[in-house]
Amino acid sequence: MSHRYTHVVQYYETDKMGITHHSNYVRWMEEARVGFLKEIGWEFTTLEALGIICPVVEISCTYKKPTVFAEQITIEVSVQEFKGVKLFIAYEMRNEQDEVVCTASSTHAFLDAEGRPIRIKQKYPGFYQALLESGTEE
Amino acid sequence: MSHRYTHVVQYYETDKMGITHHSNYVRWMEEARVGFLKEIGWEFTTLEALGIICPVVEISCTYKKPTVFAEQITIEVSVQEFKGVKLFIAYEMRNEQDEVVCTASSTHAFLDAEGRPIRIKQKYPGFYQALLESGTEE
Amino acid sequence: MSHRYTHVVQYYETDKMGITHHSNYVRWMEEARVGFLKEIGWEFTTLEALGIICPVVEISCTYKKPTVFAEQITIEVSVQEFKGVKLFIAYEMRNEQDEVVCTASSTHAFLDAEGRPIRIKQKYPGFYQALLESGTEE
Amino acid sequence: MSHRYTHVVQYYETDKMGITHHSNYVRWMEEARVGFLKEIGWEFTTLEALGIICPVVEISCTYKKPTVFAEQITIEVSVQEFKGVKLFIAYEMRNEQDEVVCTASSTHAFLDAEGRPIRIKQKYPGFYQALLESGTEE
Repeated sequence: MSHRYTHVVQYYETDKMGITHHSNYVRWMEEARVGFLKEIGWEFTTLEALGIICPVVEISCTYKKPTVFAEQITIEVSVQEFKGVKLFIAYEMRNEQDEVVCTASSTHAFLDAEGRPIRIKQKYPGFYQALLESGTEE
Repeated sequence: MSHRYTHVVQYYETDKMGITHHSNYVRWMEEARVGFLKEIGWEFTTLEALGIICPVVEISCTYKKPTVFAEQITIEVSVQEFKGVKLFIAYEMRNEQDEVVCTASSTHAFLDAEGRPIRIKQKYPGFYQALLESGTEE
Repeated sequence: MSHRYTHVVQYYETDKMGITHHSNYVRWMEEARVGFLKEIGWEFTTLEALGIICPVVEISCTYKKPTVFAEQITIEVSVQEFKGVKLFIAYEMRNEQDEVVCTASSTHAFLDAEGRPIRIKQKYPGFYQALLESGTEE
Repeated sequence: MSHRYTHVVQYYETDKMGITHHSNYVRWMEEARVGFLKEIGWEFTTLEALGIICPVVEISCTYKKPTVFAEQITIEVSVQEFKGVKLFIAYEMRNEQDEVVCTASSTHAFLDAEGRPIRIKQKYPGFYQALLESGTEE
């Protein structure tokens, strides 16, 4: 019950240390999250069409091993918890040798167009279920 | 009668060749352009408030010399021409040794909220004058 | 005899105009180029292992239509010419409706570790042939 | 005894939500860190010349308020702790209304060219002192 996304390290994502610049992992988290939402049938553009805004309220990354140009990184996304109006997502990134290169987390709020928090559980129970069922970490 | 903008090369703008990744110069052109418009009294947010959208329709860059982390790059912006609904801007970027590192150009259209071209000369003569007078290359 | 690469527009590649920021197309050109070199059997890491540095000396982009988040862009890469020590590559980018959204070009030099130009035709005839045969525009 | 760095939000840093994309704050942290090291007399290029590599091992950001194009963000950098071979840095980012928009932290290791940890306190006591004295949070 895991959701996997693959990102190939681009040349423009490297820095003068010869490795991937650390800021890019935050972007890969977004790529993986977008893919995950699509997979569970609630893609980003659907949320936007419903007037749901989903800002990032917190992120953290722990860098375990450097990655390099052209490496294929597999990102496993899992919903950790949905508490109140906040969604907690975890990420585990692995290289082609299946070594963990980065673990990360992001926290998200759900807001309406006026910036008021939306209680997803009440308002969009289908989305709530999809998030909890499909993404929960085993 | 020149407009200068300074950009210091950031670590995250370098790549594994150890130099600035070429895509960043396109971003510096935007930085310099934004500074230039502010200087002539028609800053970007003013244009947006007036409902003027100003998409980039063409860019080109010629890379003369590599630049490196922490280097201070001076970008000279000049309006080359305003022809019909198109604005042509030229850029010359120099390093601290006053060597030209990159020459570039960008072409812009001016559109209203519906995507229709705006004739700046007729509709916003003050802006037109400001562009031609302050930015024209000697 | 064309080489195609697909890029899906990422959320972080959009800007406040609601469309893809123009600087990203320069990065997609690199992605497509890297894919093209791999396809013809001379991938970037091979070139680097041989001590061949391949800086970008010129780029240009003409933006025809905006692109938006989650759109799938197909980039066709073709070698236009190999003149002296310079390689000219052309790019045509299309959206899912097969409309051209951007045409672009890049020029590259081939240098050794000391920064001296390499005559690819003489020094690496296999690479030269691969470039001309596989990538030439019909 | 605080170290401040100013970053003006660039157009290319915004996203289709109309605000700064969250990944950019990680880059601003680096900008502020580079400025801080320069201020205390141990700039990045000095460290590199000494063969000291300083990878990021952890980052976290808490986003308090969105920021928008052209806004001037002040980033206060402070050394929180130097424990063993790890340096902990804290960041507080404020907008022009002096509201906190983001708080963040980064953890860094110091490695030699072979990737072995360097004990900064023993090997570079001057750097150690400069970090602790100048940057410590009041």
